[in-house]
Amino acid sequence: MTVMEALRSRDMLLGSVTKAIEDLDKTINLLGERLEDWYGIYFPELKMEDKLKFSSAVTALDREDIDEKELASTFGQKKASEIATAAKGSLGAKLSKEDLSECISLARTILSLAKLRDGYVEYQKKLAEELCPNMSEVGGPEIGAKLVSHTGSLARLAILPASTIQVLGAEKALFKHLKNRKIPPPKHGIIFQHPRISSSPKKVRGKIARTLANKLALAAKADAFSKRRISDKLKKEFDEQYARIMKEYESGKKK
Amino acid sequence: MTVMEALRSRDMLLGSVTKAIEDLDKTINLLGERLEDWYGIYFPELKMEDKLKFSSAVTALDREDIDEKELASTFGQKKASEIATAAKGSLGAKLSKEDLSECISLARTILSLAKLRDGYVEYQKKLAEELCPNMSEVGGPEIGAKLVSHTGSLARLAILPASTIQVLGAEKALFKHLKNRKIPPPKHGIIFQHPRISSSPKKVRGKIARTLANKLALAAKADAFSKRRISDKLKKEFDEQYARIMKEYESGKKK
Repeated sequence: MTVMEALRSRDMLLGSVTKAIEDLDKTINLLGERLEDWYGIYFPELKMEDKLKFSSAVTALDREDIDEKELASTFGQKKASEIATAAKGSLGAKLSKEDLSECISLARTILSLAKLRDGYVEYQKKLAEELCPNMSEVGGPEIGAKLVSHTGSLARLAILPASTIQVLGAEKALFKHLKNRKIPPPKHGIIFQHPRISSSPKKVRGKIARTLANKLALAAKADAFSKRRISDKLKKEFDEQYARIMKEYESGKKK
Repeated sequence: MTVMEALRSRDMLLGSVTKAIEDLDKTINLLGERLEDWYGIYFPELKMEDKLKFSSAVTALDREDIDEKELASTFGQKKASEIATAAKGSLGAKLSKEDLSECISLARTILSLAKLRDGYVEYQKKLAEELCPNMSEVGGPEIGAKLVSHTGSLARLAILPASTIQVLGAEKALFKHLKNRKIPPPKHGIIFQHPRISSSPKKVRGKIARTLANKLALAAKADAFSKRRISDKLKKEFDEQYARIMKEYESGKKK
């Protein structure tokens, strides 16, 4: 096997694990909703914001015999006493041990899927840092992995212009814009999940996205071709430009 | 808790486990496709008609060191020698043990989801035979469970006319027909999966579906209200009518 082939298989592994994480997210969501429905026959008052917390609550608690102290150690004192009060006045049906255990095995399965997912996130990070170290430094390994997975290979990603990288993953919105020019083009695709974009005020997100996409395009070229580490320089530039954009925005607000 | 309430919770449990089986089927399919993609990097020549067989092949075989005898015991001699030949000339990439083990853990998860699914099918059968014994005898526990789950409760199912039960689950086709009368109405919904319908010639499926739906409607009423066992009588009638329909069809073909 040539070196080129070996590198190519790393691309493909990174793509596969990235898509597997997406599929596991979908699966956890689907089965989590099913569990809420099912367990709701027995204890409809139990509500949790998060599907994994709900699953571990299902495996841990016994409506007829709530151990508030133990619950408090996992869910906090406030939530634990909420659950205890709800359990006392629950309008749910009484279920036999056997019926309940069938429902609990779904919760256990959801938790084991989440564990597999966490392992894959670690593996994705490792692969991304190996294959595209500059991109992983500048945008984070997850965004790097998603961009590579979306285009199919690092070499293909590296020849794209920054303006394309900026909207990768927002194809639907892009085609809507191309069909009808009155609809504005998308400002960001996959890179939206970078905290500096998603947690910034809406008005400056487009500018920050353009800056980040510029740096990522340079990083991708270095990762694919020159193999030099330029991430420190790119990160510094991105930090500076980000600070300038935010400063302009703040002074604009005061006027 | 009143008797009514207790029965109601059985309805809901049957609905939940039936939907959980559907969700697990979707999940196994989704993750199975992901696995085929991922493992294809390493051994693209491996093909199996069934996603679960593919998953167990992934956990069992080692491309570099095929044990044909052991494979033959699981997949049959013909498939085993096919795999062995493909492995020798494989165009797949060489992967490290670590990379391979990440892929294999997806295969293991798929197999454990299938095991959970099989357990739920058993549980569904048990609940259906308890809640709607007549329907379970006449149409099989799976169809009984799906009909109850589709309408939400046995009591609601029992007051539906046979013609509605016949097309439950084919709502999309029914509404297409109602919008445009040139499109023929559906002949069967959930009950299509009964072997006497799905494996019969297309021409007589509608007639058999109507007969089965008639018997199921009577069975549902007995299950929900009188609680008498009338399944032997219904089954006998269905057998006779099925035989008559098939005889008519055969004699019509000869002319």
